[in-house]
Amino acid sequence: MSHLAAHPWLSGLFEDTEVQNELSAQAQLRHMLVIEAAFARALAKTGRVPADVAEQAAEYILDAEPDIALLKQGVAEDGLVVPALVRQLKQGCPHDWHPAIHTGLTSQDVIDTALILCLKSVLPLLSARLTALDTALTHLGEQQGHNQLMARTRMQAALPITVATRLSSWQLPISDHQDRLKQMAPRLLILQLGGAAGDRAALGDVAGAIETDMAQALGLSHAGVSWHSRRDAIAEFSNWLSLVSGTLGKMGQDIALMSQQGLDDVVLAGGGRSSAMAHKRNPIRAELLVALARANAVQLSGMHHALIHEQERSGAAWVLEWMLLPQMVLTTGRSLTASLELVEQIDRIGHPAGASDQSS
Amino acid sequence: MSHLAAHPWLSGLFEDTEVQNELSAQAQLRHMLVIEAAFARALAKTGRVPADVAEQAAEYILDAEPDIALLKQGVAEDGLVVPALVRQLKQGCPHDWHPAIHTGLTSQDVIDTALILCLKSVLPLLSARLTALDTALTHLGEQQGHNQLMARTRMQAALPITVATRLSSWQLPISDHQDRLKQMAPRLLILQLGGAAGDRAALGDVAGAIETDMAQALGLSHAGVSWHSRRDAIAEFSNWLSLVSGTLGKMGQDIALMSQQGLDDVVLAGGGRSSAMAHKRNPIRAELLVALARANAVQLSGMHHALIHEQERSGAAWVLEWMLLPQMVLTTGRSLTASLELVEQIDRIGHPAGASDQSS
Amino acid sequence: MSHLAAHPWLSGLFEDTEVQNELSAQAQLRHMLVIEAAFARALAKTGRVPADVAEQAAEYILDAEPDIALLKQGVAEDGLVVPALVRQLKQGCPHDWHPAIHTGLTSQDVIDTALILCLKSVLPLLSARLTALDTALTHLGEQQGHNQLMARTRMQAALPITVATRLSSWQLPISDHQDRLKQMAPRLLILQLGGAAGDRAALGDVAGAIETDMAQALGLSHAGVSWHSRRDAIAEFSNWLSLVSGTLGKMGQDIALMSQQGLDDVVLAGGGRSSAMAHKRNPIRAELLVALARANAVQLSGMHHALIHEQERSGAAWVLEWMLLPQMVLTTGRSLTASLELVEQIDRIGHPAGASDQSS
Amino acid sequence: MSHLAAHPWLSGLFEDTEVQNELSAQAQLRHMLVIEAAFARALAKTGRVPADVAEQAAEYILDAEPDIALLKQGVAEDGLVVPALVRQLKQGCPHDWHPAIHTGLTSQDVIDTALILCLKSVLPLLSARLTALDTALTHLGEQQGHNQLMARTRMQAALPITVATRLSSWQLPISDHQDRLKQMAPRLLILQLGGAAGDRAALGDVAGAIETDMAQALGLSHAGVSWHSRRDAIAEFSNWLSLVSGTLGKMGQDIALMSQQGLDDVVLAGGGRSSAMAHKRNPIRAELLVALARANAVQLSGMHHALIHEQERSGAAWVLEWMLLPQMVLTTGRSLTASLELVEQIDRIGHPAGASDQSS
Repeated sequence: MSHLAAHPWLSGLFEDTEVQNELSAQAQLRHMLVIEAAFARALAKTGRVPADVAEQAAEYILDAEPDIALLKQGVAEDGLVVPALVRQLKQGCPHDWHPAIHTGLTSQDVIDTALILCLKSVLPLLSARLTALDTALTHLGEQQGHNQLMARTRMQAALPITVATRLSSWQLPISDHQDRLKQMAPRLLILQLGGAAGDRAALGDVAGAIETDMAQALGLSHAGVSWHSRRDAIAEFSNWLSLVSGTLGKMGQDIALMSQQGLDDVVLAGGGRSSAMAHKRNPIRAELLVALARANAVQLSGMHHALIHEQERSGAAWVLEWMLLPQMVLTTGRSLTASLELVEQIDRIGHPAGASDQSS
Repeated sequence: MSHLAAHPWLSGLFEDTEVQNELSAQAQLRHMLVIEAAFARALAKTGRVPADVAEQAAEYILDAEPDIALLKQGVAEDGLVVPALVRQLKQGCPHDWHPAIHTGLTSQDVIDTALILCLKSVLPLLSARLTALDTALTHLGEQQGHNQLMARTRMQAALPITVATRLSSWQLPISDHQDRLKQMAPRLLILQLGGAAGDRAALGDVAGAIETDMAQALGLSHAGVSWHSRRDAIAEFSNWLSLVSGTLGKMGQDIALMSQQGLDDVVLAGGGRSSAMAHKRNPIRAELLVALARANAVQLSGMHHALIHEQERSGAAWVLEWMLLPQMVLTTGRSLTASLELVEQIDRIGHPAGASDQSS
Repeated sequence: MSHLAAHPWLSGLFEDTEVQNELSAQAQLRHMLVIEAAFARALAKTGRVPADVAEQAAEYILDAEPDIALLKQGVAEDGLVVPALVRQLKQGCPHDWHPAIHTGLTSQDVIDTALILCLKSVLPLLSARLTALDTALTHLGEQQGHNQLMARTRMQAALPITVATRLSSWQLPISDHQDRLKQMAPRLLILQLGGAAGDRAALGDVAGAIETDMAQALGLSHAGVSWHSRRDAIAEFSNWLSLVSGTLGKMGQDIALMSQQGLDDVVLAGGGRSSAMAHKRNPIRAELLVALARANAVQLSGMHHALIHEQERSGAAWVLEWMLLPQMVLTTGRSLTASLELVEQIDRIGHPAGASDQSS
Repeated sequence: MSHLAAHPWLSGLFEDTEVQNELSAQAQLRHMLVIEAAFARALAKTGRVPADVAEQAAEYILDAEPDIALLKQGVAEDGLVVPALVRQLKQGCPHDWHPAIHTGLTSQDVIDTALILCLKSVLPLLSARLTALDTALTHLGEQQGHNQLMARTRMQAALPITVATRLSSWQLPISDHQDRLKQMAPRLLILQLGGAAGDRAALGDVAGAIETDMAQALGLSHAGVSWHSRRDAIAEFSNWLSLVSGTLGKMGQDIALMSQQGLDDVVLAGGGRSSAMAHKRNPIRAELLVALARANAVQLSGMHHALIHEQERSGAAWVLEWMLLPQMVLTTGRSLTASLELVEQIDRIGHPAGASDQSS
């Protein structure tokens, strides 16, 4: 998905600049620095490093502009960016600041928490889009919900229904998705703090205090224990993403079917043109919703394989998440904007009472 | 999975008789008859059919023993069992009872509600097994949690931890799974009642009263609207099944790795024998948990494709659920019994302090 | 799938008795005994056991009727049936026959080769069905290929085409599937013979002679090396199964769409009835083809995960194959019979020239 | 995957510049222009447009530098780049050249053929890497194949084998992958030429001549018919990609397991460093191979769903391919370079005879 979202021209169909910004490399780097700074300050509060050193280090970290080429080289060697990032940070500051920098953290603490901070920014975006879609469908129902439609079961004409009935099958999942989001968020938006082996041993008896302080600084919850190797909240979130895109895919499939000539159950403004057939107006966004839904249904499987996260840290399972999760977020983000665009394209849905053009 | 659960000898590894019983054809048929009877009685309460007719019909339905061969033939013709079932019911009773039989229902109402009744029986089973596993892990932790273990990150020896740390990564997801189950159940255990086109038109203004009455009789919730074509609760439940088996798969993978000679981080009683190597004891159930988790991660994808349930009823998407969901339930059921068996097989986990045999 | 193929009434839609027979427990057991007997005879030819002992043992093995309950108990303990089978065989014969029984084989040799013998029986079945479908489509084209049809691109009316054009998109993949089958078979139908660690060490320098002899007896190819942990041929075969069901799924989806009232591009004889709408005739088999295709597309993913078959034998990856592959074979088998049934149901396809009822 | 391959620092682990170049937007645009030019010239050869007009148009097309922002805007409106590309081409040239530009083609002809030209460049790259890996493994076997290794079956120590046995399980699939590639290529590298409805109607009786001429110019095969809606060759190729990454994933998993301290079956030079544990050397590329294999196993499922390509052109199924296939190519490409890097990292594999440090 992401190669399409950033593609010179295919981005015209796939981009979601808001979500892309929240998941961007710049955002990731910013989050990582914010996390390292919050850790330095938390170390000071628990007396592990002097307050002035920690504060100087924290400000230095927040202002850091790492050499990206060196970060890339570090990734090539270490498989992770954090070792190279920490090396750079330490090389650019006085030696006596070093105890305030990353001492007691591990790479996964930083990378997982940065992911959670990305998601913390994305969730309200997605939720607001769900609300906007809900509103748009309510509005559509108010205007055209009384129109007639032939219900179709197993692709066959069944009995007449109102447009409102069809709309409700698109709209009702939305509030449940919002509920699921609220129930899930406390399990998801949790600081990662485990240290090398996940048990916070290097932080000793101030681990809890550091965790509490960092969580407050970062606006996250804390669990009193790391979640390095338990990824159920991540998989649950992936499921939510695919539930959303899946229910939007159903709406897209319905609208694509309704737009068939001969049925003419919907009229869309401004459908896509064909290079070969000037008369056609293709239901581009309706089909897009189906493709996005299927792509997420596929990726979700991989996120569940990543639950099999062996021992204290699985490079294989973790990297699989890196490959799949950002794309799922982007796919759901775009499915939400596309569904809004699609609903706004609807000129007519169903058949006004008294109209004589309804087939079957 | 199901071919293995019912296989003459492979069932030795795969069967889960409790769950298999709840999902059996007999249970399905019983649920369908109970639903039709509850509908007949609900019709009477709303005055749609005379009370005595409805009661006679309901009792007749509950006692019915349909000819299975005819049901099978009906499925071959109709793709669904309900039309043939209703034909049989009607043929075996006075004609004036017919208005009390299925009049205003559709096949999907009966089949979906029967599924939900199956799941209503299964959920407490699965939840009780989660509790039993939680208890078993607590017990194991009390006995051996202080043992030493070399943490492994990215397959490499990291730092010493206690067994308790490893156990917590297996145990902590359990209570979250229970919470998820509680949050999800009200969205899942809902009566399906929509009639031919999903809008309950044939039931007129007593649709709500019938729904309320049936839901009470069947011990289900009701939503005031059918969910024929919105399958998000079904997909969400599938996700839960795979979350459970996935976190158990992580435990299985860990124990399989711990059982490697040279590491010897766990000693299992009674491992599987080899036909070629008398000295081997294979961690059968540990590997099984991994296989079950991956199978569910795969099936879950299909359940999300089934969200793209076009129009008022999609034969294709619905049949896909039939093919996948029962297997997922069974897979999770077996993963829970296998994980309990596995934990009980653990003779030693980690290395008692002072022991000298710890590698690396 | 398999729970539906053997279900008391859903089998009406899903069963494929021919393929089910070839994959049945009885067939598996028969193949295992045939393999053990062929091994005994091969041992004799290479002088490893006396010829008369081997022949007596082979005949005894072929006549054996193992106690199935004991096999099941063995699977529960060992995760595999072969150790219990071999124990039973040895317990029922003179001790001096034991060297002729399984000595130098491992469980995986027997189970994998039994699978290959099942597939060897299934492949001609599937190929013959492809041929029959090809013939049926040719016949349909001869009769109705000149009918008119509105091409549909992106669900929209494009330009008129002939039915022959649509048919060719269904038919052309068939001969390529046959070609793929021919190219794949020599990589797939290969004897498994590796012994405990896969290197045939226990068979010494007669391993090659034994392999050649067994392969000839069983009608399989041989590779000079075991394939215990390389599963690419199995995954390639799974892909072929899903290619076949996928292209049939496209045909099913097309026919389901063509059957929509308002388009009326196809008229099917004897569609499925509805329990609520007497006027409906549902395109049951068309939808079934879509569901079967999607189920296989999902399972295929798991078969590719099983390529990650660690070390000399992965219990986890191998068991995943057990769970998925038989279902894929059955799904493709049924998709072939269903597609034949569907094509035979077609009364009219497209619109005869001069007819005035074509929409759009 | 692609967001990682182009990521400022994660590209250090994921990039594959050779394959990325062949799949780049620039390469796609170049291919599209080459295709349109070849079509113009083919039109001239069949007398459909004057030769000089066609040649001028072809040269003009080949030199065109389309406004990318307009292409993107076109994609937003049409869902496809070709309509906007053709509009630009026509706007920039004399009106009497227009008959030589895209007249009789459809967008899918151009986009699918451009994909095939990308793949035509990629296949030799991938094949050469397979050969290089084969050579590297042969070399490793010559040097260290006689070393001892404890075979591991079901994660348990089985019997001693040589390193050569383990290597053969990695190496043997390679030549079969090469064979599969040779068998598959003639089905894959085929010109797409169908016109608006796939039947080439607009090209009349010169369709075949145009096809032959274009195929020759582009170095592709031709099939005498379009493959707009049959995607089996694309799905078969996806399977090949995942077969390759899957067998490399097995090698990666093995090496990750071999690198465990306590087993020490392999020593890698220059493993990845940890930010928290200076003593660690992580088997980064071994784990990466597992993650890449699982990602492809997941995406493959989606490519098989895309086989259900309804009617003459499915926007939904086609867009799903756009989302998944380039990532699969890139994933396999990187898995090949990573496997080569990994084999070259091997300092020691197995245990030299006489060494005393072998565990178990």
